Amino acid sequence: MSECFDGLREECGIFGVYGSGGVPAAQTVYSGLFALQHRGQESCGMALSDMGVISCHKNMGLVSEVFGSAGLASLPGQAAIGHVRYSTAGGSTPENSQPFVFRYAKGRFAIAHNGNLVNSEQIKDELALNGALFQSTGDSEVIAHIIAQERIAAPSIEKAVLAATGRLRGSYSLLVMSPRKIVAARDPFGFRPLVIGRTDGAVVFASESCALDAVGAAFERDVEPGEIVVADPGGLRVVRAGCPGRKRLCVFEYIYFARPDSVIDKVSVHDSRVKAGALLARQHPVEADVVIGVPDSGLDAAIGFSRESAIPFGLGFVRNNYVGRTFIKPEQSKRREGVDIKLSPVPETVKGKRVVMVDDSIVRGSTTSGIIRQLKAAGASQVHVRISSPTIRWPCYFGTDIPTRDELVANRYTVPELAAAIGADSLGFLAVESLREIVFAQTKNYCDACFTGLYPDAPPGADAQIEEI
Amino acid sequence: MSECFDGLREECGIFGVYGSGGVPAAQTVYSGLFALQHRGQESCGMALSDMGVISCHKNMGLVSEVFGSAGLASLPGQAAIGHVRYSTAGGSTPENSQPFVFRYAKGRFAIAHNGNLVNSEQIKDELALNGALFQSTGDSEVIAHIIAQERIAAPSIEKAVLAATGRLRGSYSLLVMSPRKIVAARDPFGFRPLVIGRTDGAVVFASESCALDAVGAAFERDVEPGEIVVADPGGLRVVRAGCPGRKRLCVFEYIYFARPDSVIDKVSVHDSRVKAGALLARQHPVEADVVIGVPDSGLDAAIGFSRESAIPFGLGFVRNNYVGRTFIKPEQSKRREGVDIKLSPVPETVKGKRVVMVDDSIVRGSTTSGIIRQLKAAGASQVHVRISSPTIRWPCYFGTDIPTRDELVANRYTVPELAAAIGADSLGFLAVESLREIVFAQTKNYCDACFTGLYPDAPPGADAQIEEI
Amino acid sequence: MSECFDGLREECGIFGVYGSGGVPAAQTVYSGLFALQHRGQESCGMALSDMGVISCHKNMGLVSEVFGSAGLASLPGQAAIGHVRYSTAGGSTPENSQPFVFRYAKGRFAIAHNGNLVNSEQIKDELALNGALFQSTGDSEVIAHIIAQERIAAPSIEKAVLAATGRLRGSYSLLVMSPRKIVAARDPFGFRPLVIGRTDGAVVFASESCALDAVGAAFERDVEPGEIVVADPGGLRVVRAGCPGRKRLCVFEYIYFARPDSVIDKVSVHDSRVKAGALLARQHPVEADVVIGVPDSGLDAAIGFSRESAIPFGLGFVRNNYVGRTFIKPEQSKRREGVDIKLSPVPETVKGKRVVMVDDSIVRGSTTSGIIRQLKAAGASQVHVRISSPTIRWPCYFGTDIPTRDELVANRYTVPELAAAIGADSLGFLAVESLREIVFAQTKNYCDACFTGLYPDAPPGADAQIEEI
Amino acid sequence: MSECFDGLREECGIFGVYGSGGVPAAQTVYSGLFALQHRGQESCGMALSDMGVISCHKNMGLVSEVFGSAGLASLPGQAAIGHVRYSTAGGSTPENSQPFVFRYAKGRFAIAHNGNLVNSEQIKDELALNGALFQSTGDSEVIAHIIAQERIAAPSIEKAVLAATGRLRGSYSLLVMSPRKIVAARDPFGFRPLVIGRTDGAVVFASESCALDAVGAAFERDVEPGEIVVADPGGLRVVRAGCPGRKRLCVFEYIYFARPDSVIDKVSVHDSRVKAGALLARQHPVEADVVIGVPDSGLDAAIGFSRESAIPFGLGFVRNNYVGRTFIKPEQSKRREGVDIKLSPVPETVKGKRVVMVDDSIVRGSTTSGIIRQLKAAGASQVHVRISSPTIRWPCYFGTDIPTRDELVANRYTVPELAAAIGADSLGFLAVESLREIVFAQTKNYCDACFTGLYPDAPPGADAQIEEI
Repeated sequence: MSECFDGLREECGIFGVYGSGGVPAAQTVYSGLFALQHRGQESCGMALSDMGVISCHKNMGLVSEVFGSAGLASLPGQAAIGHVRYSTAGGSTPENSQPFVFRYAKGRFAIAHNGNLVNSEQIKDELALNGALFQSTGDSEVIAHIIAQERIAAPSIEKAVLAATGRLRGSYSLLVMSPRKIVAARDPFGFRPLVIGRTDGAVVFASESCALDAVGAAFERDVEPGEIVVADPGGLRVVRAGCPGRKRLCVFEYIYFARPDSVIDKVSVHDSRVKAGALLARQHPVEADVVIGVPDSGLDAAIGFSRESAIPFGLGFVRNNYVGRTFIKPEQSKRREGVDIKLSPVPETVKGKRVVMVDDSIVRGSTTSGIIRQLKAAGASQVHVRISSPTIRWPCYFGTDIPTRDELVANRYTVPELAAAIGADSLGFLAVESLREIVFAQTKNYCDACFTGLYPDAPPGADAQIEEI
Repeated sequence: MSECFDGLREECGIFGVYGSGGVPAAQTVYSGLFALQHRGQESCGMALSDMGVISCHKNMGLVSEVFGSAGLASLPGQAAIGHVRYSTAGGSTPENSQPFVFRYAKGRFAIAHNGNLVNSEQIKDELALNGALFQSTGDSEVIAHIIAQERIAAPSIEKAVLAATGRLRGSYSLLVMSPRKIVAARDPFGFRPLVIGRTDGAVVFASESCALDAVGAAFERDVEPGEIVVADPGGLRVVRAGCPGRKRLCVFEYIYFARPDSVIDKVSVHDSRVKAGALLARQHPVEADVVIGVPDSGLDAAIGFSRESAIPFGLGFVRNNYVGRTFIKPEQSKRREGVDIKLSPVPETVKGKRVVMVDDSIVRGSTTSGIIRQLKAAGASQVHVRISSPTIRWPCYFGTDIPTRDELVANRYTVPELAAAIGADSLGFLAVESLREIVFAQTKNYCDACFTGLYPDAPPGADAQIEEI
Repeated sequence: MSECFDGLREECGIFGVYGSGGVPAAQTVYSGLFALQHRGQESCGMALSDMGVISCHKNMGLVSEVFGSAGLASLPGQAAIGHVRYSTAGGSTPENSQPFVFRYAKGRFAIAHNGNLVNSEQIKDELALNGALFQSTGDSEVIAHIIAQERIAAPSIEKAVLAATGRLRGSYSLLVMSPRKIVAARDPFGFRPLVIGRTDGAVVFASESCALDAVGAAFERDVEPGEIVVADPGGLRVVRAGCPGRKRLCVFEYIYFARPDSVIDKVSVHDSRVKAGALLARQHPVEADVVIGVPDSGLDAAIGFSRESAIPFGLGFVRNNYVGRTFIKPEQSKRREGVDIKLSPVPETVKGKRVVMVDDSIVRGSTTSGIIRQLKAAGASQVHVRISSPTIRWPCYFGTDIPTRDELVANRYTVPELAAAIGADSLGFLAVESLREIVFAQTKNYCDACFTGLYPDAPPGADAQIEEI
Repeated sequence: MSECFDGLREECGIFGVYGSGGVPAAQTVYSGLFALQHRGQESCGMALSDMGVISCHKNMGLVSEVFGSAGLASLPGQAAIGHVRYSTAGGSTPENSQPFVFRYAKGRFAIAHNGNLVNSEQIKDELALNGALFQSTGDSEVIAHIIAQERIAAPSIEKAVLAATGRLRGSYSLLVMSPRKIVAARDPFGFRPLVIGRTDGAVVFASESCALDAVGAAFERDVEPGEIVVADPGGLRVVRAGCPGRKRLCVFEYIYFARPDSVIDKVSVHDSRVKAGALLARQHPVEADVVIGVPDSGLDAAIGFSRESAIPFGLGFVRNNYVGRTFIKPEQSKRREGVDIKLSPVPETVKGKRVVMVDDSIVRGSTTSGIIRQLKAAGASQVHVRISSPTIRWPCYFGTDIPTRDELVANRYTVPELAAAIGADSLGFLAVESLREIVFAQTKNYCDACFTGLYPDAPPGADAQIEEI
């Protein structure tokens, strides 16, 4: 799937550092967010604690745009948390960019959040009836309110976070920074990833391990589902132990969201995708001359397909990396309808050949259809599409932006119909049953509700099927 | 080679369209320049002829930034030429951005140029002695002066271009637009590429064929070395036939500059790189577990190496595509010295493995050294570096920005010394003799002076060896 | 006083319109804020209600910059409130720019506020202990919290504002917009002005009457001190009647802040200043050849001085209007120290003459000193300074940004010492007793605490003298 | 006349400094251009010579915008010339902004020009036939070409300028900077002003003396009509003596363009305007209660009228100084048609009074008409308009931007008709014969062609009446 015009979207990525180890915290967050940029390109920000004084710097734009030229990355600070946010179709909403910094009874605190609550409307109603004000439209401000309320009775910020999590339902990987602490929390299902790293004299938190690598930190461990930890002058302490038994990590982290060089909950994203490709080759074999992957997320699975099938791997596309934020798709409707301006086929790779094209998912179908047309125009004699995930049929309530059921092409066509509609010579999806294999799990420990409609927790106002865990 | 911090730089790319075929010329140039963006990211511009009135729009920045949001791509016009320019280390020089639009005795004309004259200082002196004024520092304004002078006696703009080329020495692929014509010219050695395409009702010119694909134009042919053609209401006419006998296309177009989906002078860039990789595998074989390419330009050669050697191809790196124009490399000197922020190794691909890393060239060596260190940190047991070009030893006078001889690492070390210096377990360069094979030529028809010091034409003020052609 | 580098600063200006009368509300607010720009140049914004949906648009910069080019002034809407904010020395603080828009139990509301609470810290503490969160550092968010709390029990937004004002102490002129109403309130002392106007089909609120003129609205009346009114589909209604008996309008509104074409609480600002000039001429007569005013706020008083003294009025200065927001004062310390770059003396007006220079106030003294030096350099034989206000000696807690007592030059020098220090041949201030005359009042109905130290209401944490009213 | 929406426009202002006297040249030019900003607000620039290396910095926008924030004013340099350019109605044309810096046979030179050639088309044709190229559309590039041509034979830049002036006809005040010299030249009629000042160790040139004051330079003398001077390490030398006998300074410099604190050709602009007002009072007396001037250029004449007539002077208008560059006039056509958003009447000054309103000129009439309507709405019982210049009837070929004859209201109405059309109770213009008095001249030494149609020099392609001088 080409992520630009027709894809799924992750809510965001978070990063934090406590202690400097000789490098300003802002510098480390800058590098860390840069490595997490694939999780959100709309806005980014960081909150800094310098000698206990918390300040906030955020704006619409890429990390390199917001922090690269403004010299913010050289601001002093001994702790910092940061956030990248995804780009909505609708338009820019600066008031939703994170981290949020609030003043409350105990001074200031900052919060960065990845996820989606399922009981936020209920909580908002309660809060509002108590006179609460909201400036953003997201769940993260709701969490901040709860923490502030709990902090009145709680003896510390970490205890307030602990108490707050008792009132939250849904997905959250959370970083909360007080003047002298950073608290990290992950929801009991562990829907979204969160890892801990260490570098000389500093504790680092990140949505993905690739951000640890980017700042030269050694991976220590994942924050466990349900776990709360705190970094403060005394080091790293567990506030509440995790409960990994009911873990339900979003399987799409492996399939599409995360970077292939990340390791999530002990499983390599790259390995997971290669495995998916290999399974696809077994489940949907085909005689062909070359296997190509749709950049960037289809490449690893294509390698797996190639190895399993012994059909040679080829570089099928050139990806134009110069799109930029202000890019407007040229309107050449007649000549080039549906074509992805960012991807160009390499004719020599596909000319006269039977091509296996591996992509990670099909959402609406239009992009896939355009790419197939391009490959055929470049001379491919056949295009066999292999998708390294099952068919997406259900909405997500836990942090992935999936179109409505009507817009999901898998709800409108059978697989053969869809193959015909997009012009593929054949089409195969990964079996739902194979998901466990791609996460190398003994038992189901991931959320696949978007494929199955079976939700780990009750979504708001929906008569959805709830999985028994 | 990672092109961002340590690479060679191409001068620029050009694109033109005559006739619209229902799509505004500006729209077509926008898409064409976007596809040529890899040839220059500093500035871009287009000159439009709308009912014979020529206007110009250019600015510092990427095509998507300059034209994407400004609505310029929807300006009316029946002919247009455009230009992308490379990013210098020094700083922005808006007065050098192209196209140039000049008023002269016959009204207005616009010019877009890729290349480098070797007699520009001489011509400038002559012109200056006649009272000429210059506003830019480049060669392109010199060419415009010559054309304007020749136009006084010449009966048409194409005859003026013809006469002007008699006075120019060096490399030039040129588009000149008068109110009702576009003249395209390529120097007699054909140092830089230039192709002709067609779409319904329009003639298209571009530095590379990938830009024809991007606008839905069919490839017609290359402009031959020394050829001058004109597009006007009467169609496409040859003003002077080419003289391909002494062709000396810059071989680095195949090795690094051009996009793999382009075909230059009938040879596929992708095929050329795959061939170079295969030759490398034969010339510098090694026992290894995986072959990886340095994105993006090393990938094709890595495929070739893998196929020839039967060592499996792997995805060794994740490339961060969110660098942006204002990106400032984080200064984490202690932790991460020399590391390319844009490239992250995929540990699962290299861990515990003997790795063959294929790249296109080594200029200063520092980037390669950083990448090797990253791979070893990610667990690679051995890193064997294979470079799909010979060692660069000489300056270029024909449009490639090569550092001074002292800065070229190949002039300071032997290959074994260099391998040790960069931390490679072994190092191999493509043999100079193999260049002919990678361009699939019977006789030498390319310029390899940067490797050999043997120049097709006398460079200015240098006692260089001149090749006999 | 030249207001740019050494003056007092007003907190802000507010404007609102309910009903359109054929002109979009945003358009009217744009024009109204433009006329109130002298009350604040740091940031501006407007909240719009379009069919009951409230949106907000605000940014750092002048009204012309924020709204002029962005097309915001043509957004649809039937009601809107706006705000201009003053420029702090320290730096930009976008999170403090107004209006604020909050979501709360009853949907959304917007608030724009001019003034300063004296019990905001107390209220904040109370709110925080209840778990409240704050994103800005100002008093306006505090007011919003109180309103939101009161709204839980109150049957309407206007009743909530009514209840809220019972908990607020200090100065506030307030506009609160719910989806279908605008509530306007003025504190019981009426420290800051607020007027009501009408145009065909629309009710208009503004800090000053000059903004009514700017939008073609007829002046209806002042909002009375302590009064609360509401504009809704039923027209304009009084929610709580005013209590003008204890009115204490900031006298500096007449002396300096307001525009001379405004009428505040039935007194013309222009008339008030002319009167002050005339009183000055009587209190501090001098033999002289010409009377000049320091633009813009000293001009009216200079006219008054000239008329009373029969000394001719002259144009003593040219004011450079092209300063712009990014203006940086040139550092020509040796040549031109202390000179106001914006003001240039007109030599022909002052050469060889005994000059009376009328200004509105002296705060730190450095600007006045520079201007006197300029006048003498331009040939003035004598410079007699007359200040149309008493000496400023005390801080303000009600919305004027006055330096610390130590920085106030009147606390460090006697008047003769000050005259010598600034190089004036004589110096006279308006008598404190005359303030009543300049506001044409029978009894004291203004706040002059900055001159007298006698405060209408207890400031926070200060052992200030409280005026008996 | 309110200069913003309906006025005449000056071409530009120029400023230069040779030698630093301890202050960087860029700093001095910054302050000087800031003081000349009234002569042009569209674009500005400066060319710097630092140790003989000439660089150029220019952009669209005000001096404070272009140089204030960019730190350019602190660039090193020992000589510099600068330019401000007026704002055209049509749009921004960055390629026309000055100074121009050219490379030519002798290295680099820079040029800044105020004026308009009448034989530029002829010269351009000649140059173009010789192969010359032009990038801008103005006359200044033409002058540069001529200088470059003459420089081939001339032994020095000043001799080249001398020879060049022999080929130029029209108005020009000129600064030409070579690496080590600044040459200043004024055309033989002296249409546009140019003065010389001195400060410790530096020679300063400026369009108006107010810019000398702004940089702390002492006025030395005017450059005489026809004079050429050069500043170089040897000091200030006369290259060609002036010929003031046929001087024809644009009389509008006194009436409107120049700043009142400037002295041009020994006559104070302020005095000239006061005199014009006094003459008006004698020529068009009226019984009235108050005299007001339209800011800023009508104020001085209003003072003169008041003194001569003994009718009190009043402040009739508040001027909104916050217009900014991006200001868009609000479209409130129904309510406020024709009203100048920048000017608001002060009701107390005019209410119930017979008002004399003094302005400098009437061009199209619409602004005047709007202002009268505003005054009457503010309560003026009568408005008597007095214009401190004669009726404008003819185009200008020497540097003032006057509308076509058809657009000039004086060519369409008699004075009584015009009074009725604009709603004035009476209307009087200064007599053409009085112009000599306002410039305090014994004989005619000014150009009044826009009033009389009698031109000092033949305009291009017009059968205009040529004045015998």
